[in-house]
Amino acid sequence: MKPYKEMSREELLACQAELNARYKEEKAKGLNLNMSRGKPEKGQLDMGMGLLSVLDEGCDMKAEDGIDCRNYGELDGIMEAKRLMADIMGVKDPDDVIVVGNGSLSTMYDAVCRSFTNGIMGCTPWHKLDNVKFLCPVPGYDRHFTITEHFGIEMINIPMTPIGPDMDLVEKYVTEDEAVKGIWCVPKYSNPQGISYSDETVRRFAALEPAAKDFRIYWDNAYAVHHLYDEEQDEILDILEECKKAGHPDMVYVFGSTSKISMAGAGIAAMASSKANLDRIKESMAVRTICYDKINQLRHARYFKDMDTVKAHMRKHADILRPKFEAVLNLLEKELGELGIGSWVKPKGGYFITFEAMDGCAKNIVQKCKDAGVVLTKAGAPFPYGKDPHDSVIRIAPSFPSAEELAAATALFVLCVKLASVEKLLEGMK
Amino acid sequence: MKPYKEMSREELLACQAELNARYKEEKAKGLNLNMSRGKPEKGQLDMGMGLLSVLDEGCDMKAEDGIDCRNYGELDGIMEAKRLMADIMGVKDPDDVIVVGNGSLSTMYDAVCRSFTNGIMGCTPWHKLDNVKFLCPVPGYDRHFTITEHFGIEMINIPMTPIGPDMDLVEKYVTEDEAVKGIWCVPKYSNPQGISYSDETVRRFAALEPAAKDFRIYWDNAYAVHHLYDEEQDEILDILEECKKAGHPDMVYVFGSTSKISMAGAGIAAMASSKANLDRIKESMAVRTICYDKINQLRHARYFKDMDTVKAHMRKHADILRPKFEAVLNLLEKELGELGIGSWVKPKGGYFITFEAMDGCAKNIVQKCKDAGVVLTKAGAPFPYGKDPHDSVIRIAPSFPSAEELAAATALFVLCVKLASVEKLLEGMK
Repeated sequence: MKPYKEMSREELLACQAELNARYKEEKAKGLNLNMSRGKPEKGQLDMGMGLLSVLDEGCDMKAEDGIDCRNYGELDGIMEAKRLMADIMGVKDPDDVIVVGNGSLSTMYDAVCRSFTNGIMGCTPWHKLDNVKFLCPVPGYDRHFTITEHFGIEMINIPMTPIGPDMDLVEKYVTEDEAVKGIWCVPKYSNPQGISYSDETVRRFAALEPAAKDFRIYWDNAYAVHHLYDEEQDEILDILEECKKAGHPDMVYVFGSTSKISMAGAGIAAMASSKANLDRIKESMAVRTICYDKINQLRHARYFKDMDTVKAHMRKHADILRPKFEAVLNLLEKELGELGIGSWVKPKGGYFITFEAMDGCAKNIVQKCKDAGVVLTKAGAPFPYGKDPHDSVIRIAPSFPSAEELAAATALFVLCVKLASVEKLLEGMK
Repeated sequence: MKPYKEMSREELLACQAELNARYKEEKAKGLNLNMSRGKPEKGQLDMGMGLLSVLDEGCDMKAEDGIDCRNYGELDGIMEAKRLMADIMGVKDPDDVIVVGNGSLSTMYDAVCRSFTNGIMGCTPWHKLDNVKFLCPVPGYDRHFTITEHFGIEMINIPMTPIGPDMDLVEKYVTEDEAVKGIWCVPKYSNPQGISYSDETVRRFAALEPAAKDFRIYWDNAYAVHHLYDEEQDEILDILEECKKAGHPDMVYVFGSTSKISMAGAGIAAMASSKANLDRIKESMAVRTICYDKINQLRHARYFKDMDTVKAHMRKHADILRPKFEAVLNLLEKELGELGIGSWVKPKGGYFITFEAMDGCAKNIVQKCKDAGVVLTKAGAPFPYGKDPHDSVIRIAPSFPSAEELAAATALFVLCVKLASVEKLLEGMK
């Protein structure tokens, strides 16, 4: 197939006519599909049902240290759950971990909120500052950006590279601007690109010398064990250890959860940081809550005995997800590989594929898909304020639809990509 | 026995010598008991173990509206859990309820926090105001006061009467002072006195005409179904309905949980309010969380089928708690009834007994108990800033210790009350 950019106006018009005809046919099918959210599919949830039978009426409900998980207490979680979450998040010492409620997002929210309302480590609460800024590697996770936007924090785009955020830019901002208080990171199989930070990137993070004493790296290790392949797996350095080595033990908050390991929304979440940070956080947590759900912590610790069990379980997830990722990637390659109208990274883990369209096409593609019954993540969503400066990035979430639905949705997607690209090219010729 | 206040100096000195000798003996026993926290005892937790077997591997995990409880979604909870919590909290319409995580305290914290960080209903966020005040009926629940203190909110004591807070005072503050943004209430079997608000009190609350548009009643219906007796039970009016009738549908936030129904810390919590309030709250909740643990919601809804089941379950709790309350009350009556050195209300429900000592004695009593190995709630704790203006109120929590422990602890307590009272009276004679 001829790359679109090499086509003449007449060729493009002919192509457009054919694509439009096909688009009309697709539209007539009345599809109702959704590739917008990183939700596990039913098979993945069925797989983890054993979790629900681990604790029953006859069960010993004592944690290994003897406390009764059914009663109040143990604000920072039970030790066996700390160990499990430390292993999953790639954190060396379970004592550096607190285990909390059913999601890591709220733990991140609370971390930002605490700094806003009361300040951390004796620093001025952010609500008293005229200007607070966060660095946002882009494309990134929309819900991160929504949190910072909610607190009126100014967000600064940092371009992603194949080995992580542009660290020259990160270093410049963090060391020079005291208003820069944080950076959102998904260091492994990043949302949405599936990029893992290189060892050099992690070490440069750990070596940061922030202008602001209350600058923290918000390290959302959401896909820590979420590999798609047995043979090719990304691993990242333990940021907490690296920060300790670099003499900055307090500079990072690590977050993780079992949401996409056990059950979405009914898992357990955790946070890891230095003792000094955790001590302050616990003081403030104690105002908000008496304790988290230790029964669910115990359930998880007993079901996922050790990392071998977790890894075996994650392989089953991968067996369900991998064919879906490959189906999308293969169709992208087959239909768009030679057309020069978009690019994508083949992720080795995580929950998303990022498609980068020609500049100025993303919104149009997403709208066309929507009009024909396929919901994609809103164009712009992976950027602060929902503004993609190039209007080119589209996040594809292959996990939830069935194989057939996915095939139909992806077929429509590539059609819309072609159509929007032709329209764009023709527009440029006017 | 002769009332202490009628004793001569010599009689008091003789009495003191005898009490001191007995105190020394008690101290020598090396007790290690705790009557400080409203924690359920083991028997109460054992009783609810059926909850853990309700959902197992073979279970249908769909909520009644067909959604899969194992996946993301349903931010405001599943309908069957809303219905259960509406019934428990005494709220008429389940659509006025959102079901959240494992504790109501965090839901209250979030409600205050939201107003602080972003404001509600278009009102100025509290962090931008010079002065924000909360009314605090006293004695009250220490954790409420800790929340408002955390946000730098000025707390104003409102004396409790046998039918609720002093409403003349409440009306005066709320209608005259725009800085008054809220009042903490435990309307049924109040913490710590066990007082239930009369219908008149509830109606006066509903009729409030606040100076501040963002004034809310924080109605913590924590002990809604926590009766101690079958025959004598307090019931309170549905504040949400009363507020609607009075034309103030947005004025109240109702909170509740199953923490002391199912499992402490592993229950489900809920909030009820007007649609307008809930809509705003859900917008802000969506920034913090994707959803709460719907599996635990489903577990609770299936285990506690209806209010008959809940009531039968609560009777079993009462059968465990009632003898403990009576043991304490009987000993107070027997040992202190005629001495005129303290008073208490006999609660018909809830988790606490409040002892009111002679002015200036509470700290001394609590300290003496502690020195002899019995931990009580800190004197002053039931007051904002931990300051009991009369140093007289002591909260007793009989639920957690065993019957024997409770007998020993209460015996020590009455001894310390006597001793501290004699000391106080002698001091006054100097």
